[in-house]
Amino acid sequence: MDLERSPLARPFPDIPPIAGVTLRVARARYKTWDRCDLTYAELAEGTTVAGVFTRSACPSSEVELGREQVKAGRARALIVNAGNSNAFTGYRGREAVEQIMAQVADKLGCTKEEVFVSSTGVIGVPLPKDKAREGVEAALGAQPCSWEEAAHTIGTTDTFTKGAHASAMIGDTRIEIGGIVKGSGMIAPDMATMLGYVFTDAAISPAFLQECLSRANRETFSCITVDSDTSTSDTVLAFATGKAGNAQLTSFEDPGADAFLAALRDVCRELAHLVVRDGEGAQKFIAVTVTGASDDESARIIGLSIANSPLVKTAIAGGDANWGRVVMAVGKAGEPADRDRLSIAFGGHWAARDGQPVADYDEAPVAKHLQGQEVDISVDLGLGEGRATVWTCDLTHGYISINADYRS
Amino acid sequence: MDLERSPLARPFPDIPPIAGVTLRVARARYKTWDRCDLTYAELAEGTTVAGVFTRSACPSSEVELGREQVKAGRARALIVNAGNSNAFTGYRGREAVEQIMAQVADKLGCTKEEVFVSSTGVIGVPLPKDKAREGVEAALGAQPCSWEEAAHTIGTTDTFTKGAHASAMIGDTRIEIGGIVKGSGMIAPDMATMLGYVFTDAAISPAFLQECLSRANRETFSCITVDSDTSTSDTVLAFATGKAGNAQLTSFEDPGADAFLAALRDVCRELAHLVVRDGEGAQKFIAVTVTGASDDESARIIGLSIANSPLVKTAIAGGDANWGRVVMAVGKAGEPADRDRLSIAFGGHWAARDGQPVADYDEAPVAKHLQGQEVDISVDLGLGEGRATVWTCDLTHGYISINADYRS
Repeated sequence: MDLERSPLARPFPDIPPIAGVTLRVARARYKTWDRCDLTYAELAEGTTVAGVFTRSACPSSEVELGREQVKAGRARALIVNAGNSNAFTGYRGREAVEQIMAQVADKLGCTKEEVFVSSTGVIGVPLPKDKAREGVEAALGAQPCSWEEAAHTIGTTDTFTKGAHASAMIGDTRIEIGGIVKGSGMIAPDMATMLGYVFTDAAISPAFLQECLSRANRETFSCITVDSDTSTSDTVLAFATGKAGNAQLTSFEDPGADAFLAALRDVCRELAHLVVRDGEGAQKFIAVTVTGASDDESARIIGLSIANSPLVKTAIAGGDANWGRVVMAVGKAGEPADRDRLSIAFGGHWAARDGQPVADYDEAPVAKHLQGQEVDISVDLGLGEGRATVWTCDLTHGYISINADYRS
Repeated sequence: MDLERSPLARPFPDIPPIAGVTLRVARARYKTWDRCDLTYAELAEGTTVAGVFTRSACPSSEVELGREQVKAGRARALIVNAGNSNAFTGYRGREAVEQIMAQVADKLGCTKEEVFVSSTGVIGVPLPKDKAREGVEAALGAQPCSWEEAAHTIGTTDTFTKGAHASAMIGDTRIEIGGIVKGSGMIAPDMATMLGYVFTDAAISPAFLQECLSRANRETFSCITVDSDTSTSDTVLAFATGKAGNAQLTSFEDPGADAFLAALRDVCRELAHLVVRDGEGAQKFIAVTVTGASDDESARIIGLSIANSPLVKTAIAGGDANWGRVVMAVGKAGEPADRDRLSIAFGGHWAARDGQPVADYDEAPVAKHLQGQEVDISVDLGLGEGRATVWTCDLTHGYISINADYRS
C-alpha cells in the first residue's frame, strides 16, 4: 500500500556532522522494497551510551540484549534492520542478532556487547541470517551517508523522514545533538516508544547520560500516543562520542549539564512530535495540557486517558468541541478528579468551568480553532499543582484503512 | 444521522410478564425525536434491589444517588430518561433528579429513596425540569406496555432493541428473570457498563441479590468493551419483586440459589453480548479467551488488552490473522507473560505455539474463520490456571463515521 505523506509532515532539518559518528546504509533486502533497509552507525572509541526500552512483557531479542548492553555504558556501533522486527522469533531470532553483533565487532575490533542492534517491521518472522550477513557486509564497506539517508533507511510505514537537532554550550565548548526516529503506528506511552537514536559529540559519563535520557524521555517519548498500542521493539538510544572536547559531564553539579539536558529534551520532544505528526491517518496534531492535578504523574495519566480515548480523537477529527467526551476520559482515568471543579478549554476558549458548561459559551472561535491542523485541549482539575502535556493525533478513516487493509 | 441496523443484531426475545413489574413509556421530548423517551417501571411493594455502577470519577447525579439508594435495598419504581445523560450538570442536574424522585414517590406513596432514576444521552446539558415533570406525569397515567417497547424507549444510538430472559427453579417454584439494556458506544469494562435493568419475580434478600449481581457482572458486563471508553452514567440494576412465592433466598446455602445465579448470569451475559453486537460500526463479534494465566483476573486484564487494541480490532475487520498484534497486546497488558510460552489460535487453529510461529501453519482455514461474523481468538500463556473470556467487536470505518460525524 502506498501511503500518502502526512499533512502534518515537517521538512527534514539541517543536522551538522557529529564528530565521532559515521553513518552508512545498505540493502539487506529483508522485504522486496527497492530501497536501503539496513543502517549502520560507526561510533568513535570511548563513546558512552544510554537507553530506554519498551516495558512490553513480550519484547524482541534486540530489546532484551540492549537492556543488558546499556548497563556497561559503552558503544562502538549501531545496526538497525527495517522490514522485520525479529520479535516473537525465539532462539532463531536471537541467533541472528548475535551473528550481527559478532560480525561488526570482528570488523571494528571491539567486544560484541559494544554493538547495538535494533529491528523493526513484521512480528514473528525470524530475521534471515544470510540476508543480515550480506547486508552488514555491504554496510561495513559502504560510503558514509547523510543524516537524512540514515533516517529514511530506519523507516517502515513512515510517510516522511524524521530528524531533529539542537546544540548547547558546556563551558566554552559548543556541543551538537542530532537525532533520528521512526514510527507511526503501534505507538503508546509509558515507555520509550518506537525506534529513536540520538547522537552527540559531548563527553558524558554513561550513568549521567542515562539519567539525562530517562528524564528527557519521561516528558517527551513517554508523553505521546497514536493508538495506545505498545510495540514489542520500542527503543531509544543516546550515544555520546566525547569528540567535542568538553570536560566530561558526570552530574548536574557540572557546568553545562542543565544546558545539555535542555538541548537533549528539545531533540527528544521534536522527535516525539514528529512521530505523532506521522500517526497513522493523522490529520490533526493534538496537544492535551492537564493542570491542577494532584501531582505531575497524575496529570500525565489523565492526559493520556484523554489522548487515548477514541471518542475524543474522533470528535476532534470531526471538528466537534465535544467536551463531554473529555469529561468521560477524565473520569475513567482512575486518578483523583472532582467533577465539580473540572474546567475544559479548546484553543484557550473555556467551554466548561467548575463542573458546569460556561453560560455565555461562544462556539464560533472554538469551531474555528478545531478547523486548524494544531488543536489544543486544556483541562484544569482544580485540585493541586500537578501538570503535564501529552501529544496525540486524531483518529480518522485513514487509520482504519491503513490497519484493516495492511497485511503483514 | 440514521444508523443502519447492526449486521450482528438479534431479534427481541419473548419475555413473559414478571409478576410485580408494570412497564409504561411516555414522551418527555428531551430531544426532537418522534418517539417515547421516558420509561417507567412500577415495582410491587417489597421489591428488593441491587446495583453496580460506573467507576468513573466524574459520574452523573443519578449514579451518585443510585449508589446510596441501593444500600437500603428497597425499590418501588425506576425512571429512565433517554436523550440527555444529565452528567456534568452540577446542582441543577441533581435538582431535576430529586424532582422526579419526589413526583413518583408522591404518586406511589413510597419514600423518595425507593425511586431509582437513570439518564442517558448528551453530557453537559441539565435535564430540563419542566419536560421531566410532564413526561413523568404522562408515564404515571399511561397504559402498561411491552418489554420490547420499554427496551426500545431506553435506547439512544442503539440500532436494535435488546432484551434477554431466563428462568430457574427455586425449590418447586419457577422464577422468571427478564432484562433490557441499552448501549453501543462509550462502552468499556471494569465496571457495570451502559444502562441495564434486570427484573425477577423471585424473593431475594437485598444483600444476597447484590452478591449475585456483583458476581454475574464480573463475568459479563465487566468483560465487554467496544471502544475502551467508560461512560459517566453506567448502571446495572436488578429488581426482585418476590411475587413468585419462593422461600426468600438469602445465601448460597439456600436451595435454588445456585440456579438463580446461573440464570441471572445467563441474562447478564446475553445483555452484555447484545451491547457488543450493537457496538458502533461493528461487523464482527469477537470472543477472546485467555487461558494459562497466573490467575483469573490477570487473564481478564490480558483479554481486555487484546480486545481494546485498535490494531487487533482493525486486523480482524480486515480479515487478517495478525497474531503479531495479539503478541503486542499481551505484552503491553502489564501482567505476567512469558514470550516463549505464548500460544495463539484463531477459530481453534493454532498460529503460534510456545513463542514461535507454528511450522506447518495453514492460513486457509483461519482466513475462512475470519470471513465469518463470529471470531474466536484464543491465547494460552502457559503459566497457570487463570482463565477468562472477554467480548468485543471489530473497529471499522463505521465507528469513525458515527463518532467523527455525530454532533452532540
